[in-house]
Amino acid sequence: MRPPQAASLPHLVLGADIGGTNLRVALADSTGRILDSERASTAGGRDPLLVVSKIREFASALLTRQDVPASALRAVGAGAPGLTDTDRGVVLMTSYLMGWQDVPLRAYLEDAFGIPAAIDNDVNLAALGESRAGVAQSVDDFVFLAIGTGIGAGIVLGRRVHRGSNWRAGEVGYLLVPGVSEEPVPDGDPGAFEAQAGGEGIRQQWLNRWSLECTPLARDLTATQIFDHARADDALAAAVLHDAARVLSYGIYNLALVLDCPLFVLGGSVGLHPALAEEMRGILNRLDCHAPPRIVPSALGDQAQITGAVHLALERAALTAPATGSTA
Amino acid sequence: MRPPQAASLPHLVLGADIGGTNLRVALADSTGRILDSERASTAGGRDPLLVVSKIREFASALLTRQDVPASALRAVGAGAPGLTDTDRGVVLMTSYLMGWQDVPLRAYLEDAFGIPAAIDNDVNLAALGESRAGVAQSVDDFVFLAIGTGIGAGIVLGRRVHRGSNWRAGEVGYLLVPGVSEEPVPDGDPGAFEAQAGGEGIRQQWLNRWSLECTPLARDLTATQIFDHARADDALAAAVLHDAARVLSYGIYNLALVLDCPLFVLGGSVGLHPALAEEMRGILNRLDCHAPPRIVPSALGDQAQITGAVHLALERAALTAPATGSTA
Repeated sequence: MRPPQAASLPHLVLGADIGGTNLRVALADSTGRILDSERASTAGGRDPLLVVSKIREFASALLTRQDVPASALRAVGAGAPGLTDTDRGVVLMTSYLMGWQDVPLRAYLEDAFGIPAAIDNDVNLAALGESRAGVAQSVDDFVFLAIGTGIGAGIVLGRRVHRGSNWRAGEVGYLLVPGVSEEPVPDGDPGAFEAQAGGEGIRQQWLNRWSLECTPLARDLTATQIFDHARADDALAAAVLHDAARVLSYGIYNLALVLDCPLFVLGGSVGLHPALAEEMRGILNRLDCHAPPRIVPSALGDQAQITGAVHLALERAALTAPATGSTA
Repeated sequence: MRPPQAASLPHLVLGADIGGTNLRVALADSTGRILDSERASTAGGRDPLLVVSKIREFASALLTRQDVPASALRAVGAGAPGLTDTDRGVVLMTSYLMGWQDVPLRAYLEDAFGIPAAIDNDVNLAALGESRAGVAQSVDDFVFLAIGTGIGAGIVLGRRVHRGSNWRAGEVGYLLVPGVSEEPVPDGDPGAFEAQAGGEGIRQQWLNRWSLECTPLARDLTATQIFDHARADDALAAAVLHDAARVLSYGIYNLALVLDCPLFVLGGSVGLHPALAEEMRGILNRLDCHAPPRIVPSALGDQAQITGAVHLALERAALTAPATGSTA
């Protein structure tokens, strides 16, 4: 039997979200709709070639389950949590957890799959996801703020990710706003801004201010647990929430001023907590004499990055004209 | 005698820098070289149509002095100190001194000259000038910081001015950094950032801290005079300089982080004072763990805006294809 003709094949792409804890791989159609996905812990093997081999293995399983040949795949998009040179396709540096340095991830993927690949960092991918398929589809300019353990921003201007001169744009964890420490930060340490307003920073603020006289709550709480208790009227939790929201609001206010950007999308486990956005809206409304920026939660939640990876692949495929049905 | 043929005419453009105190008009060749210019006070007549008529009058005088007919003019570029919608060619709002509101300046100029015109605000024009003919020619991304009475920024990304969603990008006078007031600012008042680090703010800081016990200097000094005295080792002047430089450095640090922008060009009478840049470099070097941004004075000085206006006209002329030798 003849193999199906290239022209009759669906055009599919693969997205991969490589994290310090998890690897996700998704197969999507030419509209970006995710047909199927796979997920595994990366705890056991974070070596770049091992990860690429795992992505290939997942891709095969996904294609088999969809009953399409590998030749339907047109491009791969992938992201890792680190500084990424998207021109050269190299992950320059990740956190110590991943430990990657100067990893030519795009070349690895292109070698493994035999099709075009594109890479970017995880926060930029999340921003791309919201821009193409999430809550920011109708705006040209917006900022995606990923608030998890630390804080990073993906800046979209004119519907394109602004990456900066050294691939560092959006490193907002180091912003200096009223209420943060002005002390120089040793390289590798959390920035002054995220030390007040990131998940780990919020946990630390709670620890620093906790005492049995102040609150009946446990000493060991996560940022989102603290926010839950703030909503349930614990005074110390409310104060810690307010201080984090104040610092974040100042950061957003500054970014909105500089970029004249009307929309901020909050993502990450801490950023998605509704108490945070609510507190920030109150602070921003009091601050701003013009229209304050709109603050909305990510529509894609923990799917923002993988969705961005899929759209990165779609855009890579369209860039590679004429698209040929190369075989993986 | 026949008039010279369009093909044999030089291609010239006109740039106009409309300020609250002065109007400058320059005639330039197709490389942007200024051949001749005129200047007048705008104190007597700031009405938009009066200003346009004055620009026309200057243009005629400049063309006559160069001995070229009006048909050599291919485009006009102009800027006013205010919020400018460059798509529609409308000055939305200027300071109270000019008092303009929703002025269709581009249409006025096109009507007056019968050739294409383009407009932008004064700080963006200065940034464009530095990008095309000044100290930022070799970089794609930089920020021009105009520090005069107040503070504004022109942000150039990928060699294009970033204007924002509501033409307000670069309104850095309101930035919130450590050391500035967190109080909401009434509309029209100077922002918290410029109240510490703009020329008028610096003068106020001096007044607030001045006493005969502190300094032998006069109570009534300008920002640049204070900076001169700081260099001559007056302790109060040095403290006022340091506080302004600290706030400015924090602002630049934040912008550099967000945009990943390697170059900041200082302009405006206060921004051009060498003591300020020197003090800021020291502060930024202590702050930053990555390479701190480069801080350089404007190469064009008080010619930055008119140079930008000339280049705006040049780019407008190139956009209007095919270029026709229309008559003014």
